[in-house]
Amino acid sequence: MKLYDFSLAPGPRRVRMFIAEKGIEIPSVQINTRERQQFTDEYRAVNPNCMVPTLVLDDGTSLGETVAICRYLEETHPEPNLMGRDAREKAIVEMWNRRAELEGYLAAVDAVRNSAPMFEGRGVAGVTGGVPQIPALAERGRQSMGRFFGKIDRQLADSSHLAGDRFSIADITGYITIDFARRAEIKIPEDCANVARWFAEVAERPSAAA
Amino acid sequence: MKLYDFSLAPGPRRVRMFIAEKGIEIPSVQINTRERQQFTDEYRAVNPNCMVPTLVLDDGTSLGETVAICRYLEETHPEPNLMGRDAREKAIVEMWNRRAELEGYLAAVDAVRNSAPMFEGRGVAGVTGGVPQIPALAERGRQSMGRFFGKIDRQLADSSHLAGDRFSIADITGYITIDFARRAEIKIPEDCANVARWFAEVAERPSAAA
Repeated sequence: MKLYDFSLAPGPRRVRMFIAEKGIEIPSVQINTRERQQFTDEYRAVNPNCMVPTLVLDDGTSLGETVAICRYLEETHPEPNLMGRDAREKAIVEMWNRRAELEGYLAAVDAVRNSAPMFEGRGVAGVTGGVPQIPALAERGRQSMGRFFGKIDRQLADSSHLAGDRFSIADITGYITIDFARRAEIKIPEDCANVARWFAEVAERPSAAA
Repeated sequence: MKLYDFSLAPGPRRVRMFIAEKGIEIPSVQINTRERQQFTDEYRAVNPNCMVPTLVLDDGTSLGETVAICRYLEETHPEPNLMGRDAREKAIVEMWNRRAELEGYLAAVDAVRNSAPMFEGRGVAGVTGGVPQIPALAERGRQSMGRFFGKIDRQLADSSHLAGDRFSIADITGYITIDFARRAEIKIPEDCANVARWFAEVAERPSAAA
């Protein structure tokens, strides 16, 4: 296997943290998206979608999608379990991982990509240019993040982790979302003590350094 | 089990089509989001996220997320398989289902929610109001749909279905995305013959009437 990675981007970090939790060693190559290396002919041959990360399997199969890569690794390296053990738990983990992504991660991406000068003209990932930033969308992303903090604070009042009482992929997505959102000066609201407690705990896991 | 559904919304339709393919019978209740029934106290008790669909299990577990519901049904009703059989196929199906959702479905939603008069002030699902429509985002959604058509046309040149040579959840997401996008007058481009062929085939499945 070979992982096409970029150390400064939040998407690949979701996969790196998952891999670190699993304790797997996978050789990796850096694709520096700040230098637009995802648009080279060489990388297009690996992932025509021009996104990072991509995991290439030994048979040549190219998995160019974060959660698809995690799914493959969960199936082939079941322990420690990060995506649920039975039907009910798998569904609950998927629900919270998707909420963390759809309501958190994508909102943070909207806030960052539509305001940071480095993304000028590139408001959508995987597109070479011609996509103007939308300031109103950056603002909507900030507001969505505010709602997201409130929602997960209520969830974390009743459970130690996002999808229940143990660590899962949903915590990886949620943690990296909040850490990434700092780039747009978005911080955990002071009245979200449960989020602050959980975030500090996840930050102490060795995998958080991935 | 009990499904909280709304016949006119594309999210619940993804679950209905999945259920129809599985041949499962699940009692359902209509939550008319056009009449804002997702914001009643009764429904908030079922799904505090105020989104439809929700599947409530016999033990009271509430699954308020489309793909999480599908995951539960796939695990408990494995045939016909719709989410992959082995690690590699599960990952490929997940990749294409996510691409169909992140690059297609969400783009179509951006186009519709940010232009249709019925969503004025409600640019984000599950929020009672105060989220202004963003016309530039509707336009970005239309452009993203254009790229999406091109991408899946290339994929469908080499395989009969989105995630390979058989029908999967990715086809459900892709099909409903394109059908939904018509509400914003977005149509399959004339040069995407592979998409047109595949779309017509999926439309003929009995589950497409769900």
